Formats: sequence, structure tokens, C-alpha cells
Amino acid sequence: MLVSELATQIGAEFARGSDVDVTKVCALAEQCADGLSYVSSERYLRALGATGAAAVIVMPQHVDKAPCPCLISENPALAFARAVDLLHPRQEVAGGCHPSAVVAASANVDPSAWIGPLCFVDEDVRIGAGVEVGPGCVIQRGSVIGDGSRLVASVTVCAESLVGRRVLLHPGAVIGREGFGFARDDQRWVRIPQVGRVRLGDDVEVGANSAVDRGAIGETVIADGVKIDNLIQIGHNVFIGENTAMAACSGISGSTQIGRNCTIAGAVGMAGHLTIGDDVHFTGMAMVTRSFERAGTYSSGIPAMPGNDWRRNVARFRHLDEMARRLRRLEDEVAELRQAPPSEGRSP
Amino acid sequence: MLVSELATQIGAEFARGSDVDVTKVCALAEQCADGLSYVSSERYLRALGATGAAAVIVMPQHVDKAPCPCLISENPALAFARAVDLLHPRQEVAGGCHPSAVVAASANVDPSAWIGPLCFVDEDVRIGAGVEVGPGCVIQRGSVIGDGSRLVASVTVCAESLVGRRVLLHPGAVIGREGFGFARDDQRWVRIPQVGRVRLGDDVEVGANSAVDRGAIGETVIADGVKIDNLIQIGHNVFIGENTAMAACSGISGSTQIGRNCTIAGAVGMAGHLTIGDDVHFTGMAMVTRSFERAGTYSSGIPAMPGNDWRRNVARFRHLDEMARRLRRLEDEVAELRQAPPSEGRSP
Amino acid sequence: MLVSELATQIGAEFARGSDVDVTKVCALAEQCADGLSYVSSERYLRALGATGAAAVIVMPQHVDKAPCPCLISENPALAFARAVDLLHPRQEVAGGCHPSAVVAASANVDPSAWIGPLCFVDEDVRIGAGVEVGPGCVIQRGSVIGDGSRLVASVTVCAESLVGRRVLLHPGAVIGREGFGFARDDQRWVRIPQVGRVRLGDDVEVGANSAVDRGAIGETVIADGVKIDNLIQIGHNVFIGENTAMAACSGISGSTQIGRNCTIAGAVGMAGHLTIGDDVHFTGMAMVTRSFERAGTYSSGIPAMPGNDWRRNVARFRHLDEMARRLRRLEDEVAELRQAPPSEGRSP
Repeated sequence: MLVSELATQIGAEFARGSDVDVTKVCALAEQCADGLSYVSSERYLRALGATGAAAVIVMPQHVDKAPCPCLISENPALAFARAVDLLHPRQEVAGGCHPSAVVAASANVDPSAWIGPLCFVDEDVRIGAGVEVGPGCVIQRGSVIGDGSRLVASVTVCAESLVGRRVLLHPGAVIGREGFGFARDDQRWVRIPQVGRVRLGDDVEVGANSAVDRGAIGETVIADGVKIDNLIQIGHNVFIGENTAMAACSGISGSTQIGRNCTIAGAVGMAGHLTIGDDVHFTGMAMVTRSFERAGTYSSGIPAMPGNDWRRNVARFRHLDEMARRLRRLEDEVAELRQAPPSEGRSP
Repeated sequence: MLVSELATQIGAEFARGSDVDVTKVCALAEQCADGLSYVSSERYLRALGATGAAAVIVMPQHVDKAPCPCLISENPALAFARAVDLLHPRQEVAGGCHPSAVVAASANVDPSAWIGPLCFVDEDVRIGAGVEVGPGCVIQRGSVIGDGSRLVASVTVCAESLVGRRVLLHPGAVIGREGFGFARDDQRWVRIPQVGRVRLGDDVEVGANSAVDRGAIGETVIADGVKIDNLIQIGHNVFIGENTAMAACSGISGSTQIGRNCTIAGAVGMAGHLTIGDDVHFTGMAMVTRSFERAGTYSSGIPAMPGNDWRRNVARFRHLDEMARRLRRLEDEVAELRQAPPSEGRSP
Repeated sequence: MLVSELATQIGAEFARGSDVDVTKVCALAEQCADGLSYVSSERYLRALGATGAAAVIVMPQHVDKAPCPCLISENPALAFARAVDLLHPRQEVAGGCHPSAVVAASANVDPSAWIGPLCFVDEDVRIGAGVEVGPGCVIQRGSVIGDGSRLVASVTVCAESLVGRRVLLHPGAVIGREGFGFARDDQRWVRIPQVGRVRLGDDVEVGANSAVDRGAIGETVIADGVKIDNLIQIGHNVFIGENTAMAACSGISGSTQIGRNCTIAGAVGMAGHLTIGDDVHFTGMAMVTRSFERAGTYSSGIPAMPGNDWRRNVARFRHLDEMARRLRRLEDEVAELRQAPPSEGRSP
């Protein structure tokens, strides 16, 4: 595809240089005579200067730095995402069920949906138009999968879960598990049956081996456009607002409410019953033990340092309260020294 | 069901108000003319006053606060758990094997057990009475599943694992993986074959996408009544004592022994070869690097704070040992100033 | 097997005592009249003295401490690993496909490979000699599994992934997921299709429920001999060098490059785009926010302590920057007191 034509289709402007053919995307550092790449931040400007790509998508102010034909966009990453879709189109699947799939009699599968090999679709499940259920998925009783959603492979959707449209569920994702709710009977734990469900909005993603538990009562809600990476745990009755994104290895305890447009970096842990506002950002490994309702960036944790330094500093941390008291006492003593004539102050 | 009748069945006392019908459980905040809810702590008293539930289970001292008929219990959560069982009974499964399941000739499956669609039950497996194996499960050679256990879906039980009675295994759980044991051969790692197994006691739960590794030699033991949430890693030869409960995202390294009735909050990490006593409680994200044999609550980690504050404080932490030394020196100097006549002390 | 014979086969020297028969391996603490155990560190010397094993593999300097026949090796763990292989040989599988497996017409499966029950092998997959694909695995379009690899059960290999020789993939592992890459379109996230792939070298292991994402463009590379434990996340375009080992629950963000022969303990988190050198070691729960190119051990985190101590110290940490300023001010004041005659300095 000529880059001039591609530019039109992805909403970019063909800027400069000869109208080369590109057939695929490539990394900036690759030598690739028919590859398209992009630069969306200052920190790749040096790599841009040395790129072996056939053409690059850049911001207007970076055109000068490129040694090759440019497509100009205010949002190169977005234009690039569209270009990948065009240059690397996903294979369309035809509707139907693989003969090895087991589909219950009462399941309602749209004729345009595909049910892959060795899948199980239980009673009263509804599968929308254009849905693609990859191999080895299990969709339990009464669940609904909205139009255009894709279950890549080996996904488990537990009973009564509601999955929106254009949702992407990665391998190993578990939607609608009966959550962790117990009553104590003396020392024993007695399970409180979890009778709620999960509702995933439209355009939601859930990553590989992540789990979203059903509500204890009522719903666990993942609103439209939320992106959940791999190995993430979402407890019962959590609410996550629109377009919030969570990186891998994080965990949200039960009943915590998270606002819209938040970003939660990797390995963040949140206690239960918290309220997190809109536009709140947590950096990696943050330990969230209280509500943060105001927009802003919040952090915690001690970044890694050489082991010897760490050991010494940690040993002092154990006595930090005592250090603070000694500091206060010293301040008093110095203040006294500064005020009183020394001879009087010291020998009563 | 009339609440008076329900009260009898769940061991509560019907206290006050008209004898309404309830058909389901509901959240305290819901408007639900036939719903039953409960309050087990002071912090929901305000919500109790505004509840739209038809009836609530409360502690004796909270009856006055309820605007609706009450069932009285000293342990409302436990009474509620029983009520959910009655109002939302799980569908009983009949015994048998789905025709798409693959069951080895030498497997011994109790006639009252159910083997779901697309399951694999290997040679020499024993499946007890009333067991329910949901769709897509794999049970490898020589494993035993005790009476009344339930594998929800997509569970993998590796060879020779012993699963007790009334055990609940959630989707994606992996029981009996060959653990992480290697010998070094110069720079290369050589796997030490793991010839032990896993033993799960009665009434154990293992959550979605959690893993319990087999013993290297001997057993990894999860004692009766232990509850393990989602995305938890249990290393080889770990022992977890009765009724200990672990919240999601935690990891226990090999050969660590944990006592009874402990609670381990989310995202806790434990080093290997530790000994943790009975009734020990770890708060969320605790980093457990040594044994704690005495009952009590143990914590670590720095809770999240605004990013700017965090950056400044972390920068100081890197010099905490130096700060402690400066504080000590200053204390000496001030003591000297206080004791010696200043003129003598300063100009030698 | 006589221990003298075993010694020859595992490269150890039969040292002392009668030439007993061993039939299995056992723990040092077990009473096992035909069991072989080993001691590879000083800290088990007391247990060695009390062992009930029939024979033990020990280092030369520990022979005196053993109450039973000894096999001598400079590397008892390695000799033991070989002994386990001999005493507990894994059952060989014959080549072929279980009748319940679904293998696409264009898949190229070596006749000596075994495809287990309820597996799906998609179009254009290549499976090498002696590969064992356990029950319930999914191998998607175009992937390659090298000779002698073993997929234990319930493994998902996504499209176009390259798996080396003698690779061991544990249950629930997900190889080649489309990673977490998005462009912003106003508040919405638009997926950037991930067109790269995963390349696992020879002798790699990936643990239960771990995930290795494919490259966004280009490859995610796990070099020869890398060992990845359970519940680990490897982001897109990560590179991990030869023989590096990672313990459970860790996560590596996208594009981070890790050297050879590193050890990464449990629950370590690494930010993206970092460079970690060869022979770098991170202790458990380390928070890695910057590159560490020099060999050495790096650490972070606050080890758990009694809850009351923790609360007090954490409260002080929030004011650490302020404490540091107060300390500095006090130093200045004391210096002033020491230099100036007190009367002049204080009453201007």
C-alpha cells in the first residue's frame, strides 16, 4: 500500500518524501525496506534519525528529524494502531461451531458467531453476532457474550456473567468466579454463597490468567473501555469506572470503587471498601490502604538499591519512631542552650 | 418463605415486625420487597436505618435500628450464609459422565459423581461420591478426589494429588505442579525431579488461577478448612495449618510452615523455610522474611501517598543510615555542650 | 539399585559403609531403609547426623557427619537430581494422538510426539520429535514446538509462538498473548495490534499460570536455560538472558532487557524499558524502577514487624523529608553554638 493512500485511511497527512510502498509495520530500529514505524515521544528522536523503516508516522514538529518519508499526525500511536489494522488484518472467522464443541440445546448462538474446537457452551447461554470463541473455552449456564466479542482461547466464563460488546478476553481469564466470602463458625470458615454476578461493559479487556469475581450480592462492574492486563485479581462487588487501565499483577479487594480514566500501574494492591476518584494514578507496586478521591498521582514503596545499603537503611527504619523522638528531644535541648546562659542552664 | 420459618432453619430468632415473605437475599442498600439482608458490624448501622430489604438479620443490640422485621443472631454473617443456602439452593447434579468427557478405563468414578463436558480423567484416578467435576477439567494419573468435592471448571489436578472431601477448586487452579527445584551445573540449571505430592485436607478451597506445587520429596500439605483465594502461589513442601485463610495475590515460598487460624491478607510474600505460629495475622502486602512464631499481627510496607511527598521521602530513606549516624553525633555534641563550660569545650 | 552402582551413574564416589540397596529418594528426616537423600549445605549437618535414610550424597568434608553410607560429590544437589532421574524414571509416552484430540490437517506432528486427550493443534503448527502435549492443551496457528518439549496439561500457546527444544511448560501457562499496548483516542484506549511473537529458547521452563506476552513488533525472547516459576508476567518485547531464573509472582514490564545468570526472587516487580546486567540478583519483593547494569545484589522493601511498631514507623516515614531538614538545621545550630561564644550568639 502506498503511504499516501495509507495516510488518508488512518487520518494522517502524507508529508514528505517519495510515495513508497509499505506492506507491514516494523520497529524503529529495524532495517525494513517496506516497513512502517512511528515515533510518539521525544525520547525516540535519536532512534528516529537512524531508522531503517520505509516510512514513519511522526508529530508535526518531528518531521525534520526523519530520514525517510513521513506521515504526520498529532497522535502517532493512534494512527499507527489504525495502520496495523490495515496492514495486518486479522483473519475473519466464519460463523458456526466446530464439531468438537459442545453446545447445550438451550444455548442461543448467533449464526455469525464462531464456537471453536473443544469449547463448552452451557444451557441458556446467549452468544451475540460476530463473536469468536477460541479453542478450549468454557461458558457456563446463563451467561451472555455481546456482539463482536472475542475469547481468544482457554477462557472460563462462570455462570450468569454478562459480557459486553467487543470485549476481548485473553487465555486463562476467569470471569465470574464465586468470590472470597466467609462467615466464621467458631474457628471454621463457612462459605457465604455468592449470588451476584459480573458485568463487563463494552470494549473491556481482561488479560491472561486474570480473575474477576462475581458480586456477593449484586454486581461486580467493569465499565466500558476498561483495560485489565494479565494476572490481575478483581474482588467481589468492585466497580471500575470507564476507561480505567490496570497493568499486570495488581489486585483490588472486595467492594472497592474506582473512578474513570484512572491508571493503575503494575503490582498495585488495594484494600477493600475504598473509594478512588476519577483521574487518579497509582505508580507501580503502590500499596493503597485508604481512599484517594482527588485526582492526582499517588505512590509508595522503596525502590531497589544495593543490598548492603538496603540492609543498613531498613535496620534504621525499624527505629524511625525512636529517631524522631530523639530528634525532637535534641531540638528542645538546643533551643534551651541557645536561650539560657549556659552556666545557669546546666548546673542547677 | 416466611421469615419466622427461615429463622428456625438458620438458628436465628424471629424478633420483631410482621411475618413477611422473603424469596432471595439482597444488599442492604437495595429496594427489595422480598429480599433478606444482614448487618454484622457497627459500621453498617446507618445503612441499616435506610434499608429497603424486607427483613434483616442483626445482632440483638441492633434490633432497634432496623426499620423492618428482624431475625436476631449473635453471628449474623453465619446465619446469613445459611439463609443463602436455603433461598438460593445450588442445582444438584446427577451422577454420570458427559459423553464428551474422556475417562480412562482404570479410573474409579463413584456412580453418584458427575464428570462434565470435555473433562479428562486419567488412569488410576479415584473420584468420590457426589463429586462434581465441571467442564474442561483435567485430573491426571493416580489422583484422588474426596467425596462431595467440586471442581468448578477448567481445573488441573496433576498426577498423584490427594484432594480431601468437600473441597472447592475454582477455575484455573493448578494442584500438584512439579515445583521449582534445580541444581546448578556450572551456569546451567538442572531440574531436580519433584517426586512428592500435594495433600489438600477436607473443606479446603483453592481460588481461580492459584497454584499449589507438589512436594519435592514428601508432601505439600494444606490442612482441613484452609481457604486460599485467587492468584496465590504455594511452593513445594509448604504446610498450612487448619482454618488459615489467605487473600488473593500472595505467595508462599518452599518449605515454609504456617500455623492454624492465621489470616494472610492480599499480596503477602513469604520467604522459604520459615515457621509461622498459630493465630498469626499478616496485613496486606506484608514482606515476610523471617519466622514469626508468636500470635499477633505483623505488617510491613509504605502506604501510598501523593507522588511528590513519596519522592522526597524515598530520597531521604536512601540516606537513613547516614541520618541516624548524624543524629547520634549531634546528640554527643549537644551532651558535650551541656556539660562542659562552652569556652573550654570549643577552643582547645 | 546398589549405591555403589548408583554412584558410578551419577558421577559420585561411593565412600563409606556397606553397599546398601536404594529404591527411591527420601527426605533427610525420614526413616526410610531404602531411601537416598542428600546434604548440600552446612545448615543441614545436624539433620544429617540424625538421618534415617539408607544412604546420603554429601560433600567430601561432610562424610564424617553421616551415620550411614555416603556418596561423595562436590555438587550433591546435581548428583541427587541425576539419582532421582534414575530411581524415579518418568513414564515414556509413545507417539500418536489421542482420539479426542483435534489436530488440524496442515499441522505437522512428528510421529514420535504425543498429543494428549482433548488437545487442539491448529493449522500450520509444527510439533517436533518426542514432544509430549498433555491433556487439554491448545496450540494455535503457526506455532512451533521443538524436539523433546513437554506441555504438562492445560497449556495455551498462542499463534505464531516459537518454543525451543526440551522446554517444559506447566499447566495454565499462556505463551504469546497479545500484549498490553494501547493508543489514546481522547479518553478511550485503542488497542495497538500486537504483531510480534514469542521465542522461547532451549531448556526453558514456564511455570503454572504464568504468561509471556508476544512482541508488539518483533520478539519477546526468553533465552536458553531460563527458568520461570509460577504466576509470573513477562510483558511484550522483554528479553531475558541465558540461565536467568525467576521465582514466583514476579512481573517484568514491557521492553525490559535482563542479562544472563541473574536470579530474581519472588514477587519482584520491574518497570518497563530497563536494562539489567548479567549476574544481577534481586531479593524478594524488590521494586525495580531503574536500570542496574553492574553485577551485584539489589534489594528493597520493608520486612514485616509487629503491627504497632510498623504503624509508628510508617507515620514517621511520611515526614522523613521534614525530619531530614530538621536534622540539618540542628546541625547548623549546634555548629554555631560550638563556634561562637554563647552569650554573643544568643542575645543579639
